[in-house]
Amino acid sequence: MYTLHYSPGTASMVVHLALLEIGAPYQLKLVDIDKREQFDDEYLKLNPGGKVPTLIIEGRAVYESGALLIILAERHPEAKLIPPPGTPGRDAWLQWTVFLSNSLMSTYRFWFYPQELGHQESPPDIRAAIQRKIEGVWDRIEAHLSTHGPYLLGKEFSGVDLMLTMLMRWSRNMPRPATEWPALKRQADLVRARPSWKKLYELEGLKEW
Amino acid sequence: MYTLHYSPGTASMVVHLALLEIGAPYQLKLVDIDKREQFDDEYLKLNPGGKVPTLIIEGRAVYESGALLIILAERHPEAKLIPPPGTPGRDAWLQWTVFLSNSLMSTYRFWFYPQELGHQESPPDIRAAIQRKIEGVWDRIEAHLSTHGPYLLGKEFSGVDLMLTMLMRWSRNMPRPATEWPALKRQADLVRARPSWKKLYELEGLKEW
Ligand SMILES: N[C@@H](CCC(=O)N[C@@H](CS)C(=O)NCC(=O)O)C(=O)O
Ligand SMILES: N[C@@H](CCC(=O)N[C@@H](CS)C(=O)NCC(=O)O)C(=O)O
Repeated sequence: MYTLHYSPGTASMVVHLALLEIGAPYQLKLVDIDKREQFDDEYLKLNPGGKVPTLIIEGRAVYESGALLIILAERHPEAKLIPPPGTPGRDAWLQWTVFLSNSLMSTYRFWFYPQELGHQESPPDIRAAIQRKIEGVWDRIEAHLSTHGPYLLGKEFSGVDLMLTMLMRWSRNMPRPATEWPALKRQADLVRARPSWKKLYELEGLKEW
Repeated sequence: MYTLHYSPGTASMVVHLALLEIGAPYQLKLVDIDKREQFDDEYLKLNPGGKVPTLIIEGRAVYESGALLIILAERHPEAKLIPPPGTPGRDAWLQWTVFLSNSLMSTYRFWFYPQELGHQESPPDIRAAIQRKIEGVWDRIEAHLSTHGPYLLGKEFSGVDLMLTMLMRWSRNMPRPATEWPALKRQADLVRARPSWKKLYELEGLKEW
């Protein structure tokens, strides 16, 4: 039994989706970010960074959404979220997982938390640079998917696609949302049609794409 | 036989160190960043982001240093760079690997490549904010190592320590280098005493810590 400390639509989404794909028993605990519950003493004991998600695995608190995706995928090989060890697909899968986490997750933080760059609101030139950086990643992935898609690993869906679609979703109110890139949109449409995605919307009470 | 496309002292370091720890046969190919060889057409075919490192594994080009560390560690279990699947240590190891890659790698990029934030030189307040963010990570890891160290996983060295020491090294000319945190310094001293570290300095021609 897993326990997921989550907040709707945030980085916990990919972990929640992975749990649904796996069909493993889990319980949800809401961390209300608007009430700043991520900074409650009890929660900081689980996740000293004060971020969601945290997953409780056999009584141990583990964090970092990208790591949790790897861990869950590896613990439940029957769900085929990650290709088996020793196959070329596994290397590609790990590359994309770390790449997405590295290039997008952290850049988004500067977009959504301008305070971390020292201002309540980033100056326009900085904002434009962050936007360019995120759009540069869409260009990169578009080039890959349009020749090697529709999924990140090719013809077959895998767990890293959950991460990509989550990250695309976060761009929906940006000047140029990821879904304006056609191969990205196609990937997102495929993932959004999965039962796990629909179930997650119900469970987390999400409305907007 | 692996081929590592590297540049001395950069993100390729952790992959090179892992190869040395494993004792696997490999060859090195220098990517001269000063000559902008990372943007040569040939290299961009291997690594469309124009970054080092790239590792050739059985003829396939794979990138992202954090992913390459996971891949090498997993392919060579006898080197004990990563705890075995299904152990609590493995979850912690993956958490730290993704955390370091996520929180530090990308923030360093904004420190060392201010152009990516839109300026040749970042304005002082932005620079200060990036510095605070990096130092915040040192605080976090210091708290962990001082109670659960000396290594990230406790009493035993593992592959993720190579990544931490590499990242600490990059702070050596920052206003407050990571080695000013005592438990971090202790970790770095232990890793720098390893034969792999010394060998790497020889092979990459590094001088400064
Ligand atoms: N690298 C972390 C990032 C987690 C993260 O930034 N979570 C955000 C929500 S998407 C959060 O907790 N925000 C609240 C805060 O930072 O105060 C991960 O992937 O787990
Ligand atoms: N996330 C990548 C980052 C690699 C990276 O930023 N490499 C730098 C050197 S440390 C680089 O290639 N710089 C040359 C450039 O960006 O033009 C990884 O970890 O492999």
